[in-house]
Amino acid sequence: MLKQEKVAFIGTGVMGTSIVKHLLNKNYEVTIYTRTKSKASSLIELGAKWAETPMEASVDKDVIFTMVGFPQDVEQVYCGDNGIFQTAKKGSIVVDLTTSEPTLAKKIYQIAKEKEIYSLDAPVSGGDIGAQKGMLSIMVGGDKEAFDKMLPIFEVFGENIVYQGEAGNGQHTKMCNQLLIATNMIGVCESISYGLKAGLDLERVLQSISTGAAGSWSLSNLGPKMLKGDFEPGFYIKHFIKDMKIAIDEADRMGLDLPGVKLSKDLYNHLLERGYGDNGTQALVKYYID
Amino acid sequence: MLKQEKVAFIGTGVMGTSIVKHLLNKNYEVTIYTRTKSKASSLIELGAKWAETPMEASVDKDVIFTMVGFPQDVEQVYCGDNGIFQTAKKGSIVVDLTTSEPTLAKKIYQIAKEKEIYSLDAPVSGGDIGAQKGMLSIMVGGDKEAFDKMLPIFEVFGENIVYQGEAGNGQHTKMCNQLLIATNMIGVCESISYGLKAGLDLERVLQSISTGAAGSWSLSNLGPKMLKGDFEPGFYIKHFIKDMKIAIDEADRMGLDLPGVKLSKDLYNHLLERGYGDNGTQALVKYYID
Repeated sequence: MLKQEKVAFIGTGVMGTSIVKHLLNKNYEVTIYTRTKSKASSLIELGAKWAETPMEASVDKDVIFTMVGFPQDVEQVYCGDNGIFQTAKKGSIVVDLTTSEPTLAKKIYQIAKEKEIYSLDAPVSGGDIGAQKGMLSIMVGGDKEAFDKMLPIFEVFGENIVYQGEAGNGQHTKMCNQLLIATNMIGVCESISYGLKAGLDLERVLQSISTGAAGSWSLSNLGPKMLKGDFEPGFYIKHFIKDMKIAIDEADRMGLDLPGVKLSKDLYNHLLERGYGDNGTQALVKYYID
Repeated sequence: MLKQEKVAFIGTGVMGTSIVKHLLNKNYEVTIYTRTKSKASSLIELGAKWAETPMEASVDKDVIFTMVGFPQDVEQVYCGDNGIFQTAKKGSIVVDLTTSEPTLAKKIYQIAKEKEIYSLDAPVSGGDIGAQKGMLSIMVGGDKEAFDKMLPIFEVFGENIVYQGEAGNGQHTKMCNQLLIATNMIGVCESISYGLKAGLDLERVLQSISTGAAGSWSLSNLGPKMLKGDFEPGFYIKHFIKDMKIAIDEADRMGLDLPGVKLSKDLYNHLLERGYGDNGTQALVKYYID
C-alpha cells in the first residue's frame, strides 16, 4: 500500500539516489528529476516516476526534496523559470537537503511563506555510507510545525535528526560541522607529515595518540587512508571548498573572523589548482608531503 | 615487602605527585626532589624520602624519573652541577617524562650512553585525570632493552604504553599528539563562536555534530566547558605554547612547514599577552568572542 504523502526528489546524485531508494522501499510514491536523466535509470527501474523539470516534478506533491550541488543550483531549482515555486501547491513542504547558504535558505523560506508553502533547510552529514545505511544526521531549520510533520519521513533515511530552530539554522549548524572538519584536517595532516619526516612508525604513533585528547573521527578514519595513499573521495575537495566559502562569507556578515578555516580554504585551493579537486578531503596531506 | 628497584623522582608537580603516589602504593622505595620542598610534604608523609638536589636523589638508584617544566629545566636537572649525571650509577635507567625537545632527548641519551646509563624519553598524555587514575598514555623512545626493563614500572601508572623506537621518538610522538590538538582546538572554537554568533542553541548543535565526521575528544570534552565559561586548566596555555614552539622548531629542522600549528601558536600567544597563560587551552574561544 502506498504511503499517503506524494514525494518529489530533485537531484539524484550519489546521496540523493540512496535516499530515494529508502523512500521507495518504504512505499512512498516518488517522482524524480535530475540534470542527467541517464543517471536516474536505476531509480526509474525501481519504480520512481520521471519528470522533465523541477516544475513538472512538483505538481501536486506533498513533499518536495532538493539535493543539488551549489547555492546557485538551489536558487535555480526553486526560483527559476522551470522551478518548484511555479507549481508547488499550498500546504506542501519543500525540504532542501543541499549544504547551502543560510541566507539563501531564509530567502527561500520567505518566498515559500508568501505562497503558503512550508520550507525547511535540512542539510545532512554522514556521507555516502550514512546515506546508504539510512543513518544520516539531519540538521533542520524552519517552522517547528513543518519539522514535526516531516519527522516520520526524515526517519526513513536519517538517524540523528535535530530541530535547530528558525529557517537558516539547519545550514548554520552544518557550517559548524564543516568548520570543525576544516581545521581538524589540517591537524591530522600536520601530525602525520611530521611523524613521517621524523621517521616514526605511524601505525605505532596512531596507537599512542588516537584514543586520547588528540583523537578525532578524522584521525581514526582518514589518517589510515592518508598512510595508504588512498585519496578516493568520501567527500570531494571541490565541494568542501564551496562549504568553507559559505562559512567564511556568513561569518564575515556576522563580523566574525575565522583564521583557521581561511587557512584551510587556502590550502585546499592550492590543491585544487594542482588538479586534485576530485580527490577526497584527506588528500590535503599532499600539501605537506608529495 | 619493598620492590627490588630503588626509584628517584625529580619534579613532583601535579602529575608527578600522582605518579609517585602510584609507585608508593606498589611498594617502591621512592626518593623525591622538587624545586619547592613544601609542595612535596604530602608525598613525604606517604613515605617518600626527600633529597636536597637531583644529584643527591640519584645516588644508588636503579631508576631515575624526571618530570619538570621546560627543556632548559630538563637540561639543568640532568647536566647541571647538582644534576643526575653527577651521581647516577652504571646500569641505571633515566626516564624523562617531561614533554621536551626530541633533540635534547637524543643529547641526553648520548651522554648517558657514554656513562653506561640507559636513557628513555617517555612523555605522557592523559592529563591530571589520567595521572590520578594511573591511566596515562606513555610514548617511549630509547633502547628497546631499557623499555622492556621499565615496562612493569610504566604499567604502575600507564595504560597505553607504546615503544616508538630510537631516542627522541617518544618526544616526536608527543609532538604528533600536540600538533593534532593545536589545530583541532581552533576548529572547536571557530565552530562554537560561529554557532553563538548565528544565535544557535549550542547544546542542540553539539547533539547534531558530535558523533559524526566533525567529532573529536576536544569537541566532546572541551566544547561544553567553553559553553559554561569554565576555563580552569586541564592543560595550561603557557605550557601548550612551549609544546608548539618545540614542534615548530623541530619541523623547521626537518624542512617541514606547519602553517596550522603556527597559526595556533599565534592565537595562543595573543591570549598569553592578554594574561590568560594560566587558563586551560579551551580558553582559546576568548580570542573569538570575549
